[in-house]
Amino acid sequence: MKVRLVTIGDEILIGQIVDSNSAYIAKKLNEIGLEVEEILSIHDDSEIIIETLNRILPDSDVIITTGGLGPTKDDVTKNALCEFLQTELVMDEEILAQLEERYLKLNRTMNELNRAQALMPQGSIALKNALGTAPGIWTEFQDTILINLQGVPFEMKNLIKTEVVPRLQEKFDLPFVVHRFLSVSNYPESDLAIALTDWEDNLPSDFHFAYLPERSKVKLRISAKGNYKTEIENRIEAEVQKLIPIIGSRLDSRNKDSIELILGEKLKELNLTISTAESCTGGTIATMLTSAPGSSNYFYGSVVSYATSVKENILKVPNELIENYTVVSKEVAAAMAKGVRELLKTDIAVSTTGVAGPAQGEDGKEVGTVWIAVTDGNSTETKMYFFPYLEREDFISQVSKLALQNVFEFVKIKN
Amino acid sequence: MKVRLVTIGDEILIGQIVDSNSAYIAKKLNEIGLEVEEILSIHDDSEIIIETLNRILPDSDVIITTGGLGPTKDDVTKNALCEFLQTELVMDEEILAQLEERYLKLNRTMNELNRAQALMPQGSIALKNALGTAPGIWTEFQDTILINLQGVPFEMKNLIKTEVVPRLQEKFDLPFVVHRFLSVSNYPESDLAIALTDWEDNLPSDFHFAYLPERSKVKLRISAKGNYKTEIENRIEAEVQKLIPIIGSRLDSRNKDSIELILGEKLKELNLTISTAESCTGGTIATMLTSAPGSSNYFYGSVVSYATSVKENILKVPNELIENYTVVSKEVAAAMAKGVRELLKTDIAVSTTGVAGPAQGEDGKEVGTVWIAVTDGNSTETKMYFFPYLEREDFISQVSKLALQNVFEFVKIKN
Repeated sequence: MKVRLVTIGDEILIGQIVDSNSAYIAKKLNEIGLEVEEILSIHDDSEIIIETLNRILPDSDVIITTGGLGPTKDDVTKNALCEFLQTELVMDEEILAQLEERYLKLNRTMNELNRAQALMPQGSIALKNALGTAPGIWTEFQDTILINLQGVPFEMKNLIKTEVVPRLQEKFDLPFVVHRFLSVSNYPESDLAIALTDWEDNLPSDFHFAYLPERSKVKLRISAKGNYKTEIENRIEAEVQKLIPIIGSRLDSRNKDSIELILGEKLKELNLTISTAESCTGGTIATMLTSAPGSSNYFYGSVVSYATSVKENILKVPNELIENYTVVSKEVAAAMAKGVRELLKTDIAVSTTGVAGPAQGEDGKEVGTVWIAVTDGNSTETKMYFFPYLEREDFISQVSKLALQNVFEFVKIKN
Repeated sequence: MKVRLVTIGDEILIGQIVDSNSAYIAKKLNEIGLEVEEILSIHDDSEIIIETLNRILPDSDVIITTGGLGPTKDDVTKNALCEFLQTELVMDEEILAQLEERYLKLNRTMNELNRAQALMPQGSIALKNALGTAPGIWTEFQDTILINLQGVPFEMKNLIKTEVVPRLQEKFDLPFVVHRFLSVSNYPESDLAIALTDWEDNLPSDFHFAYLPERSKVKLRISAKGNYKTEIENRIEAEVQKLIPIIGSRLDSRNKDSIELILGEKLKELNLTISTAESCTGGTIATMLTSAPGSSNYFYGSVVSYATSVKENILKVPNELIENYTVVSKEVAAAMAKGVRELLKTDIAVSTTGVAGPAQGEDGKEVGTVWIAVTDGNSTETKMYFFPYLEREDFISQVSKLALQNVFEFVKIKN
C-alpha cells in the first residue's frame, strides 16, 4: 500500500507557514495501518498539480491532497482535479442545499463564490464538511483513491476522522502498525549506538529501529507491523526487555517520548505537584506542562514575570538580589523558584531567567545566557547555560525543555 | 531557478515530528531571491534517496536535503549520496582534526562512528558545522548544486546562515522577492474576494496575490520579484494604497500577519501595557505575546492559574463566584482579568477559563466551552465560545488567538 500526501499552497513553499497538516494525516493513517511513502508540497498552480498527479498516480494506492479548495481565485485544486480526471464540474444539489441552510443559520447571504463550492467533479463523492463550506472530494480513479481536503487544519482534521479514516478502513484490510518510543538521557548517541550493536543486529528483520537525538537526550523508536496488534506489541516488548539492561539507569522512560510526558508520569508516580516562574521562557514551560492531558493533577500554575516589577512584587524576589546580581543571575533564579513555590503552594518549582534576544538584556548580560533553578523548599539547584547561537524561538523552546529535564533529574535523585 | 527541498526521515512520514526545517529553509532562501519549487519528504532508505535524486536532478538548479547525516545505522544519506554520485568516501583530514579537537575539549573519547563523520564524498566540499559533529556537504554535479544538511534544527539553521546562503549568493545573481502581508478581520473571505475583483484583475501580471483565511480573519499576501528591492516595494505599496479604501476599517494591519504582532504594534502605538490570567490556555497567550521581539515594552507578565486555589489565592477571585457560577463562567473570567490587572499593575488584562478536554471539567461544563474576558479597569468585556470539535492542542491555540483578537478589538474601540 503506497500512500502519498500532497500539500498544495505557496504559503508552504515560501516558509510562511509550517506544514503541520501532513504530520497529522500521517499519524492518523499510521494508527489504522497505512504508511505514508512520500509527502510533497507544491505550488497552487493547475499545471503543476496536474503534472504531479499524473506522475505519482501509477505508483500510489491512495493520494491525499490538502489545500486549494476555498472560494478565492488562488484556490485551483478542484478545477485542476477536473482537468486531470478529464471530467466536468456538476452541481451537487444535496451539498448546495446544506450550504443554503448553513448560510441561513449564519444569517449571511450566499454569493456566487459560495454557491460554486457545491460544484463537484462528475463521478466524485462529496465528503461532508460539518465545520466549513468546502466539501472534501473522494474519487476512485484507475485503481487509486484520490482524496482532496481543505488546508484549514480543523476542517481537515474533522474530515480525516469522520470521513476519510472510516472509508479507508472499509475499503482495505489493513495491518496494524505499532511504534514504541523510549527516552534515554546523558548517553551520547554514537556511544549508545555502539552499546546497542549486538541487540540491533539481532532484531527481527521486519522490525525498524531509529535514533532521534536531541541535545542531552536520545529518543529511540521501534516499529513493526502485522495483522494482530497484541502479537506485535508482545514481540516489541520482548525486544524492549533485552534493551533495558543495556541502557541501565540512563533510561528515562520506556513509553513516552517527550519530556513533558515523561516528567508528568514521574510526578504522578511520586504524587508531587509543580509550579513555574518564567521570565525569558514567557509561559512556554507552563504551556508544555498543560499540553499533557491530566496535567491538572500535578500542575498548579505559573507566574510569568516578564517585567522586573512582577519578580519583586509577586514572586517576592528581594530587590537587593536584583541590584547586586542583576535579573539574569543564579540568585534571582533561585529566589524566583522559591517565590512561586511558596505562592502557589506546590512541592516543586522551577524558574527561568535569561536573555532570549535578539537585543541584549537591560543589565548587559549576553544574548543566550540563562539560569534555571529547581527547588523543593529544602534544596535548590541552579544551572547556567549559554546558547548564543540559537534564534529567539529556538532558545525559548530549548530552555523550556531543559527546565523540565532538570526537574526530572532533580526528582529522580531526590526520590 | 528551480530549488527543491528534500527532508529525509521516517519520523516525518509517520507524523512523529512536524517538518519545520523546510519552512525555515524556504523562508531564508526567499529572503535572497530564491523560490522553492517543491518540498519532498521521503524515507531514510538509500534506494529511495537515490531514486528521488535521479528523478529531480535534471529539473533542479539547487537541491537541499536535510536529515540522515548522523552517526547511527539509520543515517544513510551520505552513503546514498556517494552511490548516487558514483564516487567514494574519503577521509577529510581537516574535518577530522577539528572533530578531534572538539572531543578533546568535551573530554570525550572519539569512537569509530565519530571518526566516520569526517568521511566525505570525493569532490564534495565539507560545510563546517560549528555546533555539531556532522559537517554539511556541498556538491556541484551536472549543473546542479546539491547540499546535504543535518536534520537537527539548530545545526541546520546555523549552516544555512553561515555557509549555504553566502555561497549561493556568491554563485548566482539573484533577484529580490518581496512579500507583503495585510490582515483583515470580520470580512468573510468570499465577500472580500468579490469586493476585490476589480483590484485583483488589474494587478500587474508579475504580481502574485493570495488569501489565507483563519476563523474571523483573512490574511492577504502580495508577492513580486525584481532586481531592485526598493522598486518592487514601491510597486507593491502603490497597489496597497488602492486596496486600503476598498477594505476600509476592517483592515487591522498593513504590515504584520500574526495577531500577536498586530496587537503588539497597536499597544506600542497607544502606549498601553498588558497582563494575562490564563486557565485553559496554560500560558500560551503569554508565550505568543513574548514571541514578539520588544514585547517587554508592553507585556508585564501572566498568572497561569491552572488550579482553582491559584485563582482564589493569587488572582483573588471570590470563592462565591466559583461556588455560584463554576470556574468556567463569565463571572470568574471577568474576576480573573480584573485580578491580574490589579496584581501586575497593567493598563489592560485578558483572561481565559474553559475546558480544553479531552476529559470534561470538574464542574461538568462541556468540553470546548470557554470564556474570555478583557478589562481596562473601567469596563470589562466577556465573550463565550464553544469549540466542541477542536482537539486539545488546537482548542488552546484557537482560544489564545481569539483572546488576543478580542484585546485588539477592545483597544481599537476604546482608543
